[in-house]
Amino acid sequence: MHSLNVALGDRAYAIHIGRGLLEQAGRILPCLKTQRVAIVTNDVVGPLYLERLRSALENAGVAVSTVVLPDGEAHKDWQTLNRIFDMLLAERCERSTTLIALGGGVVGDMGGFAAACYQRGMPFIQIPTTLLAQVDSSVGGKTAINHPLGKNMIGAFYQPRLVLADIDTLDTLPDRELSAGLAEVIKYGLIRDPEFLAWIETHLDRLLARDTAALAFAIERSCRNKAEVVAADETEQGERALLNLGHTFGHAIETGMGYGQWLHGEAVAAGTMMAAELSRALGWIGKEDVARVEALFERARLPVWGPRLGVERYLEFMSHDKKVEAGRLRLVLLRALGRAVIHGDATQGEIAAAIEARCR
Amino acid sequence: MHSLNVALGDRAYAIHIGRGLLEQAGRILPCLKTQRVAIVTNDVVGPLYLERLRSALENAGVAVSTVVLPDGEAHKDWQTLNRIFDMLLAERCERSTTLIALGGGVVGDMGGFAAACYQRGMPFIQIPTTLLAQVDSSVGGKTAINHPLGKNMIGAFYQPRLVLADIDTLDTLPDRELSAGLAEVIKYGLIRDPEFLAWIETHLDRLLARDTAALAFAIERSCRNKAEVVAADETEQGERALLNLGHTFGHAIETGMGYGQWLHGEAVAAGTMMAAELSRALGWIGKEDVARVEALFERARLPVWGPRLGVERYLEFMSHDKKVEAGRLRLVLLRALGRAVIHGDATQGEIAAAIEARCR
Repeated sequence: MHSLNVALGDRAYAIHIGRGLLEQAGRILPCLKTQRVAIVTNDVVGPLYLERLRSALENAGVAVSTVVLPDGEAHKDWQTLNRIFDMLLAERCERSTTLIALGGGVVGDMGGFAAACYQRGMPFIQIPTTLLAQVDSSVGGKTAINHPLGKNMIGAFYQPRLVLADIDTLDTLPDRELSAGLAEVIKYGLIRDPEFLAWIETHLDRLLARDTAALAFAIERSCRNKAEVVAADETEQGERALLNLGHTFGHAIETGMGYGQWLHGEAVAAGTMMAAELSRALGWIGKEDVARVEALFERARLPVWGPRLGVERYLEFMSHDKKVEAGRLRLVLLRALGRAVIHGDATQGEIAAAIEARCR
Repeated sequence: MHSLNVALGDRAYAIHIGRGLLEQAGRILPCLKTQRVAIVTNDVVGPLYLERLRSALENAGVAVSTVVLPDGEAHKDWQTLNRIFDMLLAERCERSTTLIALGGGVVGDMGGFAAACYQRGMPFIQIPTTLLAQVDSSVGGKTAINHPLGKNMIGAFYQPRLVLADIDTLDTLPDRELSAGLAEVIKYGLIRDPEFLAWIETHLDRLLARDTAALAFAIERSCRNKAEVVAADETEQGERALLNLGHTFGHAIETGMGYGQWLHGEAVAAGTMMAAELSRALGWIGKEDVARVEALFERARLPVWGPRLGVERYLEFMSHDKKVEAGRLRLVLLRALGRAVIHGDATQGEIAAAIEARCR
């Protein structure tokens, strides 16, 4: 097992990465405030892993309540969030009860937001079961639900007390979801870790074959990158925005196509190609760099072209981005492969051209 | 004008209390992050005061968006909250836009919660226009909406950057709302400020007659009490719970009667009588103390008897209280008039008897 620390002062927490963690209630117990938990999961992950976690906790004397949500980004809304509140109140969960989110990014985002809001804040643990959640969304305390006009528009910064990434849970992950997770893994290489980027290029086949050692390394290195950025800028006043490479374009794809049509990681891959294309048009990276990114995404079985929503609709959805300042889009672009920057000076025309060039 | 400071480190803020503050955009400008605000108000307060605030801000070069919500506790729900989000997104408000809550406790609670959640947090200013909001709910950062099973169950601790209590706005306050506010004023006297309690007894007629100097003194003294408690215990780990005298019983009345039937302050007055009765039954205060509290509430035209919901329903609603720990109700009771304590050892029978004794 590998362990990392997210250095956030009195809200610091550990990330454990390894096999068989779901059965190790002993890792969870010290993080509970009382012997009571409420587990939030979905109807895909629940049947596979809920009983394993529940019995580990119950055998350790912990009282367990559960709620099983419908799976998918299309349900990351208030209505589904409210099912968590209904359960917490019906089961008389207290503000000292610990909420455990067992699932992918959607479950983690909603479980975390519910924990942030229930009785104005209850303790919270992330047990991510997808690669995407293990390398990205479970770490750093961003929680949210979607609004019809924009993804993740309503949420909170609310840190978990523990993240348990059990690599065993990846055994049942569909190939498409594995690839989606790789989009975020590749992202860390592109924004700040060129050595990791080269490692991914070398080891991508092992990752796709779900080789344990390769996955463990990729998850740990990704989490370490994320933990460093979050510790330096918890509420995204600056550097943290770099983690959003490809996300402004990608959120437009997700919102425009209807939540759940594209997986988040797929939209991030296509969005990253748009960011790369714009970086190239600005003269920051070369054609061969764009081709290198494209080749890596393609090998990872990720889309490298955005859907034809129409440039106007892209720009419309992007105008709601959380990084907009004084009406101006601030985009994460690539100064080089391995070095991302925030750029607020791209013109509408330049942005439109990059979208146009990467839609098919 | 009187000014106070809520000492919360880098989240410290000022409370200004006086006449004509609504027109003084100059007080607001230094607290804005950008020259953009979104004002949240309701259909009672809006027609009276929105234009005054809006034109003061617009004349100072600030762009103003607005949303007018339906009035009343019955609307303190997700559906109404979502109208704020719809407006913020439709108007392309950014996370640097400042949300201003112009209204009573419901507007402040919902506006504050919307600000806490929109894009994971936007700056926020309280302009309370009821006595209750000016002396209590606008200060301290408690924000929330109601759930059918419990009042204020879903919310956040989220501090404003400024509180402007314009006494002018009390000129149009209905008598019933003025009385409701006095319940919270009397509360400060009962829980920690016996000198203030005596002052209220002496000056109650002036307060009911809306004498400016008396109101200004009562608001400032109340806010000072609240600011001290909040600075010592922002997230209610201990002492802050004392501010909830009468609230556990009161929330049961509000929830049981249907939100909006009883004003919050009315429910707090009747609930405080139940807490006083229980304190008497425990031998902490005497019959004459209970009578003194009752006489003061009655003079303030507040209810001193709870509705006959049935003791079982009271206990059911109270079991969802945020102060419940390990299944045990923790009640705020009176060791003496002017000294409240948290008590977790009252039996169900003792609590039931106190409710029974104060229902009519």
